[in-house]
Amino acid sequence: MAALGGLAVLATGRRVWKLPARLSAALQGCWPRRGYSEGRAESPPTFGFLFDIDGVLVRGHRVIPAALEAFSKLVNSQGQLRVPVVFVTNAGNILQQGKAKDLSALLGCKVDPDQVILSHSPMKLFLQHHKRRMLVSGQGPLVENARALGFQNVVTIDELRMAFPELDMVDLERRPKTMPPRSDFPAIEGVLLLGEPVRWETSLQLIMDVLLSGGDPGASLAAAPYPHLPILASNMDLLWMAEAKMPRFGHGTFLLCLEAIYRKVTGKELKYEGLMGKPSILTYQYAEDIIRQQAERRGWAAPIRKLYAVGDNPMSDVYGANLFHQYLQMAKRGEEEHGTGRWQKQRPSATQSCASILVCTGIYSSQHAGSQVPTPGGADRPFHGHRDFSFSPELLEASHIVQDVNEAVQLVFRQEGWA
Amino acid sequence: MAALGGLAVLATGRRVWKLPARLSAALQGCWPRRGYSEGRAESPPTFGFLFDIDGVLVRGHRVIPAALEAFSKLVNSQGQLRVPVVFVTNAGNILQQGKAKDLSALLGCKVDPDQVILSHSPMKLFLQHHKRRMLVSGQGPLVENARALGFQNVVTIDELRMAFPELDMVDLERRPKTMPPRSDFPAIEGVLLLGEPVRWETSLQLIMDVLLSGGDPGASLAAAPYPHLPILASNMDLLWMAEAKMPRFGHGTFLLCLEAIYRKVTGKELKYEGLMGKPSILTYQYAEDIIRQQAERRGWAAPIRKLYAVGDNPMSDVYGANLFHQYLQMAKRGEEEHGTGRWQKQRPSATQSCASILVCTGIYSSQHAGSQVPTPGGADRPFHGHRDFSFSPELLEASHIVQDVNEAVQLVFRQEGWA
Repeated sequence: MAALGGLAVLATGRRVWKLPARLSAALQGCWPRRGYSEGRAESPPTFGFLFDIDGVLVRGHRVIPAALEAFSKLVNSQGQLRVPVVFVTNAGNILQQGKAKDLSALLGCKVDPDQVILSHSPMKLFLQHHKRRMLVSGQGPLVENARALGFQNVVTIDELRMAFPELDMVDLERRPKTMPPRSDFPAIEGVLLLGEPVRWETSLQLIMDVLLSGGDPGASLAAAPYPHLPILASNMDLLWMAEAKMPRFGHGTFLLCLEAIYRKVTGKELKYEGLMGKPSILTYQYAEDIIRQQAERRGWAAPIRKLYAVGDNPMSDVYGANLFHQYLQMAKRGEEEHGTGRWQKQRPSATQSCASILVCTGIYSSQHAGSQVPTPGGADRPFHGHRDFSFSPELLEASHIVQDVNEAVQLVFRQEGWA
Repeated sequence: MAALGGLAVLATGRRVWKLPARLSAALQGCWPRRGYSEGRAESPPTFGFLFDIDGVLVRGHRVIPAALEAFSKLVNSQGQLRVPVVFVTNAGNILQQGKAKDLSALLGCKVDPDQVILSHSPMKLFLQHHKRRMLVSGQGPLVENARALGFQNVVTIDELRMAFPELDMVDLERRPKTMPPRSDFPAIEGVLLLGEPVRWETSLQLIMDVLLSGGDPGASLAAAPYPHLPILASNMDLLWMAEAKMPRFGHGTFLLCLEAIYRKVTGKELKYEGLMGKPSILTYQYAEDIIRQQAERRGWAAPIRKLYAVGDNPMSDVYGANLFHQYLQMAKRGEEEHGTGRWQKQRPSATQSCASILVCTGIYSSQHAGSQVPTPGGADRPFHGHRDFSFSPELLEASHIVQDVNEAVQLVFRQEGWA
């Protein structure tokens, strides 16, 4: 069984989910199934999938068995996807290629890096900032990610710290012993918040210094410029589920701290020029575009009219898909666009709807088990969405709730009249 | 010149302020002046001093020359203080003994550890928590400080992290590779926030876990207990001035983040059972008590009726002294007490007033130079005080504004009819 063997090799050091017999069969199907519809011409799809990754396809380092079943239905006998598929995650401190490789190994299907949408992927669209000198915050392959997004002139928090050693004073053991005169350091022109950093005190302090000084943290202005330098941020998830019983801090918690500090120090609100990752409309617009390109490359003539977004998190996956659906309806009626209207106007969309499908293999099931996972807000429950998203309870209601991603694919295929 | 020699030795590796001739003379006087009022009996003082340290007596690692002049007036020919003196700092990540030793060296006068009031010193009064199992956050001599305050059973954030490795997930490189089953770990019963920690994400996450789980972060409760476990916090300074032109984050910024996260996650307000350090009344009550004890030990029969608080920070030193003065007036009129009324009632106070004296050798002068130092709040200026202190602009007005601490001592001596 080559697929499982490959999976086991690629997941070295990680536990591999034990597969029941029916799944072994399904898995075999996920690699090109020799006997499946060979030579039969399918009508081109008019719908596409947006799959969330964590809690839908994988949990921690392990693939969720239903994902293998689902993908056995999604690929044809040549091992090619029968419909356009993108993987939409709110992760940001990873590389697109790395995630595509992981998914290929876990799902036993070839996943192209272009199919993986990270929380910051839509930053590719902010061409007006690509030549600016941007301070970048996050961890992991930070500079590589920023460059891949198109930013040609990036400065990390660590580089800024080295240039201005007197700024980072919280850690008594890291305080500089000497203060060399500041070297000539070109001014910062914008801030990229790609994911949660480590040593929050350092990133929070240096980002504040850059905002309050208008880009030159060695200076001291009589009044902080406002509006401040442009900030592009991605992944506003307050919390996420890992192995611990209670949810862990996400990048949204870091943003919350930055917003609170900026408000307290200046008395004004921190503004984002772009805030992306689910549930931002921007991310869905971007995903829609990638799906359209995928269909074009495959030579599918029929326009993609329906999107199905499968996720486990009501606050990001369901809320985001519903918000985008609402946006599509408004655009259809010619109402004023919200979100990134300018970008949208350039490329008229064929998409008519975006349905949200909630699965119970991730954070949503935990919620039902009574643990303190992100709650939707309301009379007695706090709103865990981002400050810039006013709470609309109806947007938390999924179009469909199913057990797992396999059921989600079955449901869609039934609805679309596919075998 | 033994004093300067001693100072130079003790301040090894730090730059020593170059003294003008008149100050060398003053410094000599700061050590027992053989010819000064020897044998003359002074009438016992009815007033005492509360000196802030940073920006009043020292700036960075250097003594402010005016402090040497001031202390030459404050000691008698035996090198003993002529009036009760306490040093009240909002620092917390240091030891009382260490600060006393530093001050002794810098001022050329023997400073007793009991005279040094750190931001968390009043925690000694919270006897009801001393035997509880307390989670302690901060850096430096953390456990030593907690023990010195009377806490007999403390757990550090690092110890908690080791016991529950699945909790601290922000730093990708520190994520545990394996998750050992949780060892038996007695429940936490309260939280001590002594000063700003390093790796804020870790402390914020683990403190939240302890609060949401009622002390057992390995558990997951259906609803977070509220009121949550008792929290004692010290040093609420949002910002402070170091070598950088713009102010740096203080422990108040960490508390602000914790409060914002607690509010967002639970929809409720974080409550402090005790919040100490200037401008908290608790700190002034504590200082008053130490001053009274000092006078008793010296055998000064006359009660101490007036306190003079000398500081450089309007938001902590001036606001705090004025708030305490207001409290004393209310107590005199028999009005309901605020602050820690219970403790106050046990020891009737002779203190009738607390005057605030603002000096221009620290943060206040920087403010006038136009840099973005903590601002008092008001119509167009944000309020940099703590959430739990409603802003009263009149409390920011110092009783007196003088150039430096020497002028402050001269002013008080004149007012009190002392030579």
